[in-house]
Amino acid sequence: MQPNNQDRGTRVVSLGGVMIGGGNPVVVQSMTNTDTRDVKKTLRQVRGLAEAGCEVIRLAVPDQESARALQKIIARSPIPVVADIHFDPKLALESLDSGVHGLRLNPGNIRSRKALREIVRVAESRGVPIRVGVNSGSIARDVREKHGSAVEALVASAMEHISLLEEMGFAAIKVSLKASDVMTTIAAYRRMRAMRDYPLHIGITEAGTLFSGLIKSAAGLGVLLAEGIGDTIRISLAADPQDEVRACYSLLRSLKLRNRGVEIVACPTCARAGLDVFKTAAALERRLASVSSPLRIAVMGCGVNGPGEARHSDLGAVGTPKGIQVYVKGARAGTVEARDLTAWMLKKAHELAGEKEK
Amino acid sequence: MQPNNQDRGTRVVSLGGVMIGGGNPVVVQSMTNTDTRDVKKTLRQVRGLAEAGCEVIRLAVPDQESARALQKIIARSPIPVVADIHFDPKLALESLDSGVHGLRLNPGNIRSRKALREIVRVAESRGVPIRVGVNSGSIARDVREKHGSAVEALVASAMEHISLLEEMGFAAIKVSLKASDVMTTIAAYRRMRAMRDYPLHIGITEAGTLFSGLIKSAAGLGVLLAEGIGDTIRISLAADPQDEVRACYSLLRSLKLRNRGVEIVACPTCARAGLDVFKTAAALERRLASVSSPLRIAVMGCGVNGPGEARHSDLGAVGTPKGIQVYVKGARAGTVEARDLTAWMLKKAHELAGEKEK
Repeated sequence: MQPNNQDRGTRVVSLGGVMIGGGNPVVVQSMTNTDTRDVKKTLRQVRGLAEAGCEVIRLAVPDQESARALQKIIARSPIPVVADIHFDPKLALESLDSGVHGLRLNPGNIRSRKALREIVRVAESRGVPIRVGVNSGSIARDVREKHGSAVEALVASAMEHISLLEEMGFAAIKVSLKASDVMTTIAAYRRMRAMRDYPLHIGITEAGTLFSGLIKSAAGLGVLLAEGIGDTIRISLAADPQDEVRACYSLLRSLKLRNRGVEIVACPTCARAGLDVFKTAAALERRLASVSSPLRIAVMGCGVNGPGEARHSDLGAVGTPKGIQVYVKGARAGTVEARDLTAWMLKKAHELAGEKEK
Repeated sequence: MQPNNQDRGTRVVSLGGVMIGGGNPVVVQSMTNTDTRDVKKTLRQVRGLAEAGCEVIRLAVPDQESARALQKIIARSPIPVVADIHFDPKLALESLDSGVHGLRLNPGNIRSRKALREIVRVAESRGVPIRVGVNSGSIARDVREKHGSAVEALVASAMEHISLLEEMGFAAIKVSLKASDVMTTIAAYRRMRAMRDYPLHIGITEAGTLFSGLIKSAAGLGVLLAEGIGDTIRISLAADPQDEVRACYSLLRSLKLRNRGVEIVACPTCARAGLDVFKTAAALERRLASVSSPLRIAVMGCGVNGPGEARHSDLGAVGTPKGIQVYVKGARAGTVEARDLTAWMLKKAHELAGEKEK
């Protein structure tokens, strides 16, 4: 499958060389959850995320020590680093000094106009974009009440921050308007997209555990991406950040926007199932998580839909009354004993991907 | 939140008293994966699914013994039962004799026109609707090639089956057009919705493991439901069918179409986190899975977005430098020690829901 990189009509911003917006592929990002001051631990997490396909990483910078630690982290990070700043202009300037590739900062939260001017000047001179990121949880109650709805409040709040940057002639802006409510998030991004052509960083905030977080994120981002809205995504999960990255690729693959890693097509089983679909699919998913080549694998319980799915996949297994029939690149390749199935599939998958097991 | 039950413009069909289509709430269904002949085991699964909120249950009927077992199952099932039939008209007639509330059957697969007429006559007289369910995996290669694209093949195949029923004057039709490819599924349903006003059963087929299955299903069904397409849903997962039901409600809740059970809003944590968000959120989700009352619970690591989310939830906990602050119905309710947090939240949640722990 060739990913569909239709121009989404937004401006293009470079974040440490990663191009975001326009017709560029939707960029996958995540955020570390380590203590930023712990350089070793943070770098280990960044490297793991980069291996999983993360293309931009954001770090919380809650204090000066964190801002300084950025220098060492950036020097050894395989991917561009964004500093997440709240309120304190000194932390923004120190992060810029540390060589950060991007800032997430809401200009309206910087009380001193002079300090903001200085941040904008340095960011401009270093080619560092700024993401204006408003969030339903941090919009003051009075702002929400003034605007009548959470959607209006999010959009108005983002526009206030954006205006401050625009007044200073700064254009390397990205925008996010995340709510923990899916419909509010969708409506806010649609409104913003109609008002400005800055690249949009989309996400559902505080989406929750793996289970409900995947559902809320895939539904909300799915609707937006299917409309051509969204230039970079983060799926926020209360789970391992590597799961965020894998979830991003799974979502983008399903919408034909990116094509990385293994897709397991598997049936939910019923009274007809002739192989242990759940066990086999779960084992393959887990043990092929590090494969980055695009690969579609079908694990199907019976002959009703099994042969069709197997033939349309790179690799397939179908439970039949005559044993487990396997398929390679659409052609039947004999039968395999149940006890050998996972090992056989893993071996073939690594062969097809041209990648060794990690 | 009041669910939004705007009329979706489809006809209304009754499935054993459960109304599907028009302005009725989107109906949640699942399928058993037990051996249908094992009445006891099947009934146990059906009851568990009904408790989780499943409103219609489908059973595979691959042989006569299964068709006969339906009688005992239906007599004791708390929810309407659909028989899933492939090719064999006798199994359809025996299932109707057993009192089944719905059939899933593709008329074109019944070779004898006379047998089909008999099925339609009995279904009509008993008020049993028939779902035409086409599936990318079982569309013959020649049909796919003839129609050029998988979307055209799915729609053309469904229309052939539908025409057979329409010619016989049968109107209690539901339609599904499931592909394992998300974009193909979306396109096929859009086309069908423009051609006929039969209620649509939507789903992504063979969506895979919990992880990728939730993502593909939420993205595909999310896009359709957000457009007002879809009258009943099944999320097919290679996992426990109760997860299918919980996933349906989580998706429908996020789109404001149904409102059942507990929603956990939780942050992904970062360097600022002041409480163990992952552990707390996961424990609450697991131990509140049986609560059916709508309840929004926020578990937030820090004061940036925490207080806002907590105030907009029924119950909230926020990690702060001064300890874990808890909220009930939007108001602060003191601080709780980390070791007591889960127990405190569970107790309050059960109080608010007016339901005891199961």
